[in-house]
Amino acid sequence: MNNTPPRGFTEIEFAARTARAQRRMAGQGLSGMLLTTEAEVRYFSGFHTLFWQSPTRPWFLFVPVEGKPIAIIPEIGAALMRQTWLDDIRTWSAPNPQDDGISLLTELLSPLAQTGASIGMLKGHETTLRMPLGDYERLLNGLPGLRIDDATGIVRALRMTKSAAEIEKLSHICTIGSATFAQIPEFTHEGMPFEETFRAFRREALLQGADDVPYLVGGAGPGGYDDVISPPSGRSSQSGDVMMMDTGATWDGYFCDFDRNFAIGHADDLSRRAYDVLWRATEAGLVAARVGTTCRELFQAMRSVIVEIDDQGGDVGRLGHGLGMQLTEWPSLADFDDTVIEEGMVLTLEPSLSYGNARLMVHEENIVIRAGGAELLSRRAAPELPVI
Amino acid sequence: MNNTPPRGFTEIEFAARTARAQRRMAGQGLSGMLLTTEAEVRYFSGFHTLFWQSPTRPWFLFVPVEGKPIAIIPEIGAALMRQTWLDDIRTWSAPNPQDDGISLLTELLSPLAQTGASIGMLKGHETTLRMPLGDYERLLNGLPGLRIDDATGIVRALRMTKSAAEIEKLSHICTIGSATFAQIPEFTHEGMPFEETFRAFRREALLQGADDVPYLVGGAGPGGYDDVISPPSGRSSQSGDVMMMDTGATWDGYFCDFDRNFAIGHADDLSRRAYDVLWRATEAGLVAARVGTTCRELFQAMRSVIVEIDDQGGDVGRLGHGLGMQLTEWPSLADFDDTVIEEGMVLTLEPSLSYGNARLMVHEENIVIRAGGAELLSRRAAPELPVI
Repeated sequence: MNNTPPRGFTEIEFAARTARAQRRMAGQGLSGMLLTTEAEVRYFSGFHTLFWQSPTRPWFLFVPVEGKPIAIIPEIGAALMRQTWLDDIRTWSAPNPQDDGISLLTELLSPLAQTGASIGMLKGHETTLRMPLGDYERLLNGLPGLRIDDATGIVRALRMTKSAAEIEKLSHICTIGSATFAQIPEFTHEGMPFEETFRAFRREALLQGADDVPYLVGGAGPGGYDDVISPPSGRSSQSGDVMMMDTGATWDGYFCDFDRNFAIGHADDLSRRAYDVLWRATEAGLVAARVGTTCRELFQAMRSVIVEIDDQGGDVGRLGHGLGMQLTEWPSLADFDDTVIEEGMVLTLEPSLSYGNARLMVHEENIVIRAGGAELLSRRAAPELPVI
Repeated sequence: MNNTPPRGFTEIEFAARTARAQRRMAGQGLSGMLLTTEAEVRYFSGFHTLFWQSPTRPWFLFVPVEGKPIAIIPEIGAALMRQTWLDDIRTWSAPNPQDDGISLLTELLSPLAQTGASIGMLKGHETTLRMPLGDYERLLNGLPGLRIDDATGIVRALRMTKSAAEIEKLSHICTIGSATFAQIPEFTHEGMPFEETFRAFRREALLQGADDVPYLVGGAGPGGYDDVISPPSGRSSQSGDVMMMDTGATWDGYFCDFDRNFAIGHADDLSRRAYDVLWRATEAGLVAARVGTTCRELFQAMRSVIVEIDDQGGDVGRLGHGLGMQLTEWPSLADFDDTVIEEGMVLTLEPSLSYGNARLMVHEENIVIRAGGAELLSRRAAPELPVI
């Protein structure tokens, strides 16, 4: 690809993220945040590795209310962590089932426990605890007096709004995703097993410049599909099938997440109509996605079109979400989410509906919120259901 | 690839896994196990989707001490879960930050809580809690009387020993990995940026039949590398570089995990010697990996060769591990692990050493333990450092 942005981020960016977090920590009375998850460790340190695929070793980052973050990590990651902006890197020879970082954490946090301080951890929606639960309990038992508060709100507020450098990466991977979808008629045809089409898609995405394709799901069936999270089947496509492919490809640790629908051979009328409704629901979303609108209002703008054909709530729970270092991030475009949309948010518009005989259709685009409104990062889907 | 095994497993296999777990649960006095992680939900149900890439929604499987497992999952997964052997599938419209499955779990577990029963969860080494920590705390607060014990030992004992069908899948993906490594001289050359070489590797692995390449890390540097978990750099390879690529490719949800070392243009004497020591350490491991041997003894068999050149413990913490649905699984080939090796275990032999000026070298093969000893699943690496 031309116009490939630089990899990584400047130290200034990490310092700014940390300072923003620290202002919020101070406001919430926290002495620091203890982070265990890949996206958060990378967000504040720049530590970027696929080694997180291995569940064996826990990794910790402590962001104090003042000063640089402190890494408490397995020794195998020390060389890579030393390339980041961090100065204080504490390591142990892992795995060590008897003491996988717990002594180092206890040493770090004991002074805070002794003063009855509070620290934040991620306990809220869309978070997990990436360390053994037993180790977490042992850590707390060894630190009587330490309060653990929920820091989800702090991290959510920071990560929801993307920097210019983050948007550049997201734009780049969306361009790669669009170029890959544009090649679909070149690499698949009627009679090709779906499994082979998916494999060809992955190869094409890599050729177009993606680093990886961690997510590729879809649906396919005669006159429509009824499931959107399955691996591809070995069945060969046949005329009258409707096929959807939804990809999360990555570049430098940032995701695109959008889909495309196709009819094989010919498209039935009902599927064409469903497609048209979703396409127009997305248009309504593109207009509504502006600074100051709430996620609920954006959800309702898309719903008001979807009801033309489907007045049920649907099974997917929402009509879009945040996008960034993870395939899906806060906020949710849903009735429950009153987050106010801000400049720099990167979102998916993902209207879906049920139709016909328990068929489901999903359509998805990626956008960034600018001062003047939504800007597409994905190349807009065709207004009518394309036929291969 | 020819000889591609069937995808998925028979219902008999899931029933057998469940029955084995239930015997152990009964022995430990547990009324059931509550599972939150991808590998465990898939192991007992067959539910297989990349949708776990999205951190937004929790997924739960309860394995009672009698009867089939019960799924408590987001509605978006219902169609796929109904294709498994499970009968009892309870869903909610997710995401729902106010109640992401907690009411359904409370309803299921309340009768157990009222009798003061114990259930198991994964709290031990190499496990995580894949649900919001705050939701976990709320769940427990709503179930006074319920005891949560650590079920890691139960799941570990089951998953460590692979069935014939699992070994078939692992053998297949190792064959694909071997065929991909064999093509390296065809798709890379001196002067090619490492990033491009890695991209070409992924494309080749897909061409050879891999479903995905979730893990591909490596190292490269003049006269050796000093880091084994980094993403590839944009630097072009040059004569005298030593390059290592370590891949975890998947087929039907099972991983291979092995690496290969190459010299670009020519190989320096020190790197050739390091390679020779690691190759012979692996030979020692192949001989020692037998039914009845402990992981510690297998570790020591490899260490006894490595000390020829490196008498330090090294940074990586162990010299191999289990392999299966995850890139790294129990057990560890390490001084701390006295697990007795059994027929049907699939392991990596992964000796590593430090040499020269803070250089590091790692070598890795995949094996299955048969009654008569170790059988290679990966095609054995060349006895001398290959030069490209």
